[in-house]
Amino acid sequence: MSTNEVTFLIFGATGDLAHRKLFPAIYCLFCDGRLDEDFGVIGIARRDKQTEDFHKDVRESIEHYSRYKIEDEDAWQRFISRFYYYGLDVSNQAGYSGLKDMTGQLEQQLGLAGNRLFYLAMAPNYFGVVAQNVRSSGLKESSGWTRLIIEKPFGHDLPSANELNEQIHNAFAEDETYRIDHYLGKEMVQNIEVIRFANAMFEPLWNNRHIDNIQITLSEVVGVEERAGYYESAGALRDMVQNHIMQMIMMVAMEPPSRFETEAIRDEKVKVLRSMRRYSPDEIKQYVVRGQYGPGELQGKSMPGYREEPGVNPESTTETFVAAKLFVDNFRWAGVPFYVRTGKRLPTKTTEIVLELKGLPQSSYLNMEGKMGPNLIVIRIQPVEGMYLNLNAKKHGAGGGVEPITFEYCNNCDQESTMEAYERLFIDCIKGDPTFFTRWDEVMEAWEIADPIEQLWQQEKPAFPNYAAGTWGPQAADELLSKGGHHWWPVYGQKMLEGVQASQPESREQQVATSV
Amino acid sequence: MSTNEVTFLIFGATGDLAHRKLFPAIYCLFCDGRLDEDFGVIGIARRDKQTEDFHKDVRESIEHYSRYKIEDEDAWQRFISRFYYYGLDVSNQAGYSGLKDMTGQLEQQLGLAGNRLFYLAMAPNYFGVVAQNVRSSGLKESSGWTRLIIEKPFGHDLPSANELNEQIHNAFAEDETYRIDHYLGKEMVQNIEVIRFANAMFEPLWNNRHIDNIQITLSEVVGVEERAGYYESAGALRDMVQNHIMQMIMMVAMEPPSRFETEAIRDEKVKVLRSMRRYSPDEIKQYVVRGQYGPGELQGKSMPGYREEPGVNPESTTETFVAAKLFVDNFRWAGVPFYVRTGKRLPTKTTEIVLELKGLPQSSYLNMEGKMGPNLIVIRIQPVEGMYLNLNAKKHGAGGGVEPITFEYCNNCDQESTMEAYERLFIDCIKGDPTFFTRWDEVMEAWEIADPIEQLWQQEKPAFPNYAAGTWGPQAADELLSKGGHHWWPVYGQKMLEGVQASQPESREQQVATSV
Repeated sequence: MSTNEVTFLIFGATGDLAHRKLFPAIYCLFCDGRLDEDFGVIGIARRDKQTEDFHKDVRESIEHYSRYKIEDEDAWQRFISRFYYYGLDVSNQAGYSGLKDMTGQLEQQLGLAGNRLFYLAMAPNYFGVVAQNVRSSGLKESSGWTRLIIEKPFGHDLPSANELNEQIHNAFAEDETYRIDHYLGKEMVQNIEVIRFANAMFEPLWNNRHIDNIQITLSEVVGVEERAGYYESAGALRDMVQNHIMQMIMMVAMEPPSRFETEAIRDEKVKVLRSMRRYSPDEIKQYVVRGQYGPGELQGKSMPGYREEPGVNPESTTETFVAAKLFVDNFRWAGVPFYVRTGKRLPTKTTEIVLELKGLPQSSYLNMEGKMGPNLIVIRIQPVEGMYLNLNAKKHGAGGGVEPITFEYCNNCDQESTMEAYERLFIDCIKGDPTFFTRWDEVMEAWEIADPIEQLWQQEKPAFPNYAAGTWGPQAADELLSKGGHHWWPVYGQKMLEGVQASQPESREQQVATSV
Repeated sequence: MSTNEVTFLIFGATGDLAHRKLFPAIYCLFCDGRLDEDFGVIGIARRDKQTEDFHKDVRESIEHYSRYKIEDEDAWQRFISRFYYYGLDVSNQAGYSGLKDMTGQLEQQLGLAGNRLFYLAMAPNYFGVVAQNVRSSGLKESSGWTRLIIEKPFGHDLPSANELNEQIHNAFAEDETYRIDHYLGKEMVQNIEVIRFANAMFEPLWNNRHIDNIQITLSEVVGVEERAGYYESAGALRDMVQNHIMQMIMMVAMEPPSRFETEAIRDEKVKVLRSMRRYSPDEIKQYVVRGQYGPGELQGKSMPGYREEPGVNPESTTETFVAAKLFVDNFRWAGVPFYVRTGKRLPTKTTEIVLELKGLPQSSYLNMEGKMGPNLIVIRIQPVEGMYLNLNAKKHGAGGGVEPITFEYCNNCDQESTMEAYERLFIDCIKGDPTFFTRWDEVMEAWEIADPIEQLWQQEKPAFPNYAAGTWGPQAADELLSKGGHHWWPVYGQKMLEGVQASQPESREQQVATSV
């Protein structure tokens, strides 16, 4: 019997996340032989649906979004025959007993031992009621393990997150609760700890003696798309900074754990947030910038402003951009600014972490042409996965002078496709390894940092829109750095857009398909 | 008037060095516009020769050995018309007045201001007499500068080097004397100081806190070729270690100079040799290994042993291989072994410097498959010019584990051909920049290190041959490292020969032409 055997109970099976991410992830795990054939899937959603129709939906999802195509119809039949559908109004307690019966039957029929993975791919206001009903219906009573995966947002502030957490904990213990931050499933985010702690070269440099500043960019080209309902009440701070950006800061800044074990790692991660400087309202004004895009041009197309997007309030004060200068006030990082930014409708889609090393003696001989820039250690999360070092070398040929050179390592350039975050995280959850999920105290600390910002913003009406679609956000985001003598380093794709020689060879830029 | 204007007086114009290196270097400088057309060349050798025949010789040399081909006959005519020949027995004082007249006429005819570069491309036993005669004939009295370039060997031990130096200094001052070590003209050797001192990333690591050991390999595939006469009385210690390898040690180990100026740099370089541990005879036996190749197979061909080579004594005790474990006893390098090796008829031609970083905590999680090797900083001098870093990263895909990754920088991969050392060094000499030539005290210190080894070896008859052509030298060269818990890291081309996946992509291995 495979240790990976599992029944997926996917709440919100007709929704966008299930369609775009979850079904394709299950299919890819199946194709890679990671699930063997010891699994079952029950899709759960409000509307009634015939199994055949559900199977059609799943097929369509995989044809559109999976990195593996359907090539073998026999294999496909073995795969899809394990998918069942159950119509349920999640608030209706009575409906759960039918779901319980169906789950039991399916497990018996497929010879599964009763491991149940509950995935709540739905709005968070239903989390409490689902957890409660799963428990009261006895659906959680099983001879195998039962685990719950929930998606962000984990509340919209600390009190609501606390409430949500209590509701969930009525049914699922903390060690059964897997809070997905899909950034933690990304290859290069997981690689950060390995790069830092498996190399004698980096650890001696990874501190305030040698690092001048750290820059994290998480830029999106897309606008709000069909998510206006959610986004209007969330905004970039809650949607990106409180979770993904905080997770990247934790991975970059954490102390080495005593052992590479889940709780040892999470203990070190949360210490980073505990050390993060809490800002007074005046400091927030000084160090945190918000923005909202107006109309503009992006990649050659005219784009409407955020307030013109469907479903958005024409006087919306929701921020679509955040930049901040943060400090981790511990011995390792005292005095090193962590500059972060994220936004929608920015010129290029990229997630990148730049560590800028401190300066050097400005020898006039070596720097006689003024080309001796600071060293950079750059970790590329997406779309290119890899790392590069920006260094200086002798200018080729006779005569002195220095020119920048690049040492490169590309993690996905030779890969046809890389395992998606959701595949990785499914496997981790099935194996009972929550290392790359968010622990409750991380969520709590992150809200403690975000809440005062949000509260201040609620009190003051912003002069939105303040950046044009297709630009790098409001001017204040550049001034945030220039006040400290810094500037944002170009990120992946940016130089190419600006017609400058890219630090990444062009062929590679073109070669690597953009992955979500 | 160009500041580069010069008359080359090449003694030994019919010899191998002139033919293979000097004429091609002058031609390439001409093609690159570095000489403009303000130059003249007088070839000097014993035998009588017509100008036309000399021109034919030069053309043949360039057709065979130059990185630029002759494509434009007009340009060629402008080039070759500046070449003259003068037959001279260098011991015959009387002949120099004719040379003086010819030089004066040529300068007048070509409108040159009288800068004279004397190049002694001949056996060192003539250096003294040429210098003496150049002076007494008045050939050195000129309205421009006069400089002397001499080739290694600078003597065969400290007393003979001293004597040679005194003879030369009778005619040329130290600042007019340019001792060529063509390794100092190599792009990547010159790059070492830039890489070290123009990057904040390396300097903090470049010491005994972080470096475990340093390995320098200078391996040749060729045997003794037509140089048996010289080589029999020299051997690998004098031919390679006393000069090229010592120069590379100095570049790698030197402290940062206060300014990037010639004497400041040379002052720091010579301090390295002054700090090098002097060995007692017992220590020499323990730390220095000599070898001589016997018959063997190399790159698929049978090779004779050294004693079977033409011109070699069948009972020769000349070493064709040296390995040594050296120590630079200063605060930066205390305790860090510098392992060096050089030899003929080794499996691949390469010059490479490896800095092995100290170990890491051996976390069982990160190292669970035992693939976490130490970090390496590798500087490739030739044939590939570049650098790479051997690091560890997360194994691609799900699950833990670490695998080695390589960050690469290739300096000559995109170049059609790289400036040869001799071109660079000619230009430096013409400009009056002796930075990349050897200062007298460097020569002296290097002989002080080599002499006791040579003296001990003279007393003890070695059991030669002790390695087969096509192998990496005697077993003792491996034991030198294994006693300290180390091993030689594979160098460029080695893994490919052994059928193992090379750290350098194969295409690049094939792409880069081998340069001498």
